[in-house]
Amino acid sequence: MMLQSRLFTKTLKSFPKDEEAINAKMLIRGGFIRKMSAGVYAQLPLGLRVLDKINRIIREEMNAIGGQEMLMQALVAKEYWEKSKRWHTDVAYEFKSPFGEEFALGWTHEEVVTAIATHFINSYKDLPLSVYQIQTKYRAEPRAKNGLLRGREFMMKDLYSFHSSKESLDDFYQQVIKAYQKILKRVGLKALVTEASGGAFTKEYTHEFQVLAPAGEDVVFYCKQCDFAQNKEIAHVQKGNICPLCGGEIGSSPAIEVANVFKLGTRYSEAFNLTYTDKDGNRQPVIMGSYGIGPTRIMATLVEVHNDEKGIIWPESVAPYQIHLLELKSKNGALKLNAKKIYKDLKDSGIEVLFDDRDVSAGEKFADADLLGIPWRAVISEKSGAKIELKKRDSKEAKLVGLQELQKLTNN
Amino acid sequence: MMLQSRLFTKTLKSFPKDEEAINAKMLIRGGFIRKMSAGVYAQLPLGLRVLDKINRIIREEMNAIGGQEMLMQALVAKEYWEKSKRWHTDVAYEFKSPFGEEFALGWTHEEVVTAIATHFINSYKDLPLSVYQIQTKYRAEPRAKNGLLRGREFMMKDLYSFHSSKESLDDFYQQVIKAYQKILKRVGLKALVTEASGGAFTKEYTHEFQVLAPAGEDVVFYCKQCDFAQNKEIAHVQKGNICPLCGGEIGSSPAIEVANVFKLGTRYSEAFNLTYTDKDGNRQPVIMGSYGIGPTRIMATLVEVHNDEKGIIWPESVAPYQIHLLELKSKNGALKLNAKKIYKDLKDSGIEVLFDDRDVSAGEKFADADLLGIPWRAVISEKSGAKIELKKRDSKEAKLVGLQELQKLTNN
Repeated sequence: MMLQSRLFTKTLKSFPKDEEAINAKMLIRGGFIRKMSAGVYAQLPLGLRVLDKINRIIREEMNAIGGQEMLMQALVAKEYWEKSKRWHTDVAYEFKSPFGEEFALGWTHEEVVTAIATHFINSYKDLPLSVYQIQTKYRAEPRAKNGLLRGREFMMKDLYSFHSSKESLDDFYQQVIKAYQKILKRVGLKALVTEASGGAFTKEYTHEFQVLAPAGEDVVFYCKQCDFAQNKEIAHVQKGNICPLCGGEIGSSPAIEVANVFKLGTRYSEAFNLTYTDKDGNRQPVIMGSYGIGPTRIMATLVEVHNDEKGIIWPESVAPYQIHLLELKSKNGALKLNAKKIYKDLKDSGIEVLFDDRDVSAGEKFADADLLGIPWRAVISEKSGAKIELKKRDSKEAKLVGLQELQKLTNN
Repeated sequence: MMLQSRLFTKTLKSFPKDEEAINAKMLIRGGFIRKMSAGVYAQLPLGLRVLDKINRIIREEMNAIGGQEMLMQALVAKEYWEKSKRWHTDVAYEFKSPFGEEFALGWTHEEVVTAIATHFINSYKDLPLSVYQIQTKYRAEPRAKNGLLRGREFMMKDLYSFHSSKESLDDFYQQVIKAYQKILKRVGLKALVTEASGGAFTKEYTHEFQVLAPAGEDVVFYCKQCDFAQNKEIAHVQKGNICPLCGGEIGSSPAIEVANVFKLGTRYSEAFNLTYTDKDGNRQPVIMGSYGIGPTRIMATLVEVHNDEKGIIWPESVAPYQIHLLELKSKNGALKLNAKKIYKDLKDSGIEVLFDDRDVSAGEKFADADLLGIPWRAVISEKSGAKIELKKRDSKEAKLVGLQELQKLTNN
């Protein structure tokens, strides 16, 4: 797929000094991303490959529960925010265009999606419906010190659902929770479904998906035996307490919120007059839900929880490539195996390979392989002879395999 | 793939009154897009499917010439624009963040990509290189009356190349011209490669890809026999003249610019100090090119040139679905064919089907099929009996086929 000598990026010799978070340090040093302003990052080719894989998994699970993908605008005019009384929100980047129009860059899209839905939802027969987008969001976060965990420009998958009854919303809400659990499991994260405050819109709890990690900005109390978990903000338990559900021991940990689900009720449908005709012919406000999961934040969380002192350890499902093929040139003459041919064979059998064909030392190649964190490292060297030395990134043991075995091992 | 009764959007009864351009009228009425502000459109599920197909074709052709995909930011800080003396450009949306930082929303990315490249390009051995992104751009266009042809928020594929010699740039420039010709042919557009002004950066001509269409904002003089074509701005010929290349007759037409290619030279590399070490050990400024093609503008152009009075006629390569399956329910009892089963069979064989299962009149279904413009219309009705009535959108003749024939016809 890619010759490392031709890759746009190079790894950096050391970690960037202006970053504190592990995710930013490792992703920048590996050439996955670049910081362009505080809280604003460019995705370089290696980073975009990871992000595309995360997004593909998200799309599959959203489509599986009937979500229809669309793409809304970032230039959201003042009139939308005024209807919901969210003009002049702290995190909004607001500005006036050269023509005098006022905009806030979309930091969430309840307003826009509700306005659009008024043109298409008319009858109870049209409901339930759900739409989502994977799109760039803008938030003027005061603290932008956690790399991709808290960006000012970041990617979000936001899903919105429309219902004619509370029961329909409750049912879909549970479907989304299951879909998010599947997504997080597939990308390689272990998340707790955590009760959290409903905020201004609902008296019920909402739910957050929290990944326990030292870099987390939230604190979660959770049962070590069952699924009970609460955000510190609403928790009725403390560390060392007995779990109210199962009697297990309560632990506590900083945690990263990678997704959340909200029952919006009729807050936005009332603001935008989004109504439907019920079976008796009466107009009723549509009942809505809103559900977010953050692809760039997932990318950062993966690095926070899957790393060692040498670098990143990508789960296979989201790794930029499956195999990192290293050719260690011999001083004493030709190698027994033709690395270029093996690279081509792997490519042709549909395996994603990054081929380190560079003219640099073995030590530099090994260090880069550990930093980039591609799941399988395959080395062709004088020592490996007519075989390939294969090692998993998170294993210490290597073994010698043939080409066919390599293809089988990594292509399932 | 999709039941029309479950589709988020519905077609509108009439064309929107606040739009003049055919592309906006038809795309909005069909439920492909929605206008959210002047020049700002949301892509609804049908529209995003078209856009995704256009983008897939673009990606394939960009990857084929070695382009590496990345994704840059929209929040481009003042410091980038100042280096190239493009702060306070007319089309820029400029604003101050709550923290006092000044940004212009990215309306082009020469500055950003050049700044990034300084971290990775060092030697002549690193060159040539090319990177691209498919990303949302923002331009405060004074006239936003042409639908997706001139959006203020729109999608752009921008490619940037880096070279150590003029010859290398010239060679890549020709490769991009060929790749753009392939893309435009694959999406179903006939474009003239037109000489245009080089602007401030180069004395050579640049090239635009112009599609002849009444809605075009440019005027092109072109030879009716050979490939000669010039933008009016630089043209040395007039309508009725003799072609300077082949002696053919010169015609003129309004035209839509769907892509362009520029040789940037060292304008940006000098501004950002992007240099490389040549073979003799001297630092030299990198030579650059910049190449743009507009996915949303392509979508609009397709509608402008492929339509009739009833609606859109999508080319198969970019149609949102391949088959529009219509079930016309019978008053006299059950139909001979089970439309739901045929829908499922088509889906299972990998064909993209929109199944009009709605409880509306035959007339409404036919009108919607013509408006949406899906290439094949397959009707199951009392009249079609045990067969399916198949018609191409741009043909007047229908024929009766069996399921297998339908699968074959539409799945190649």
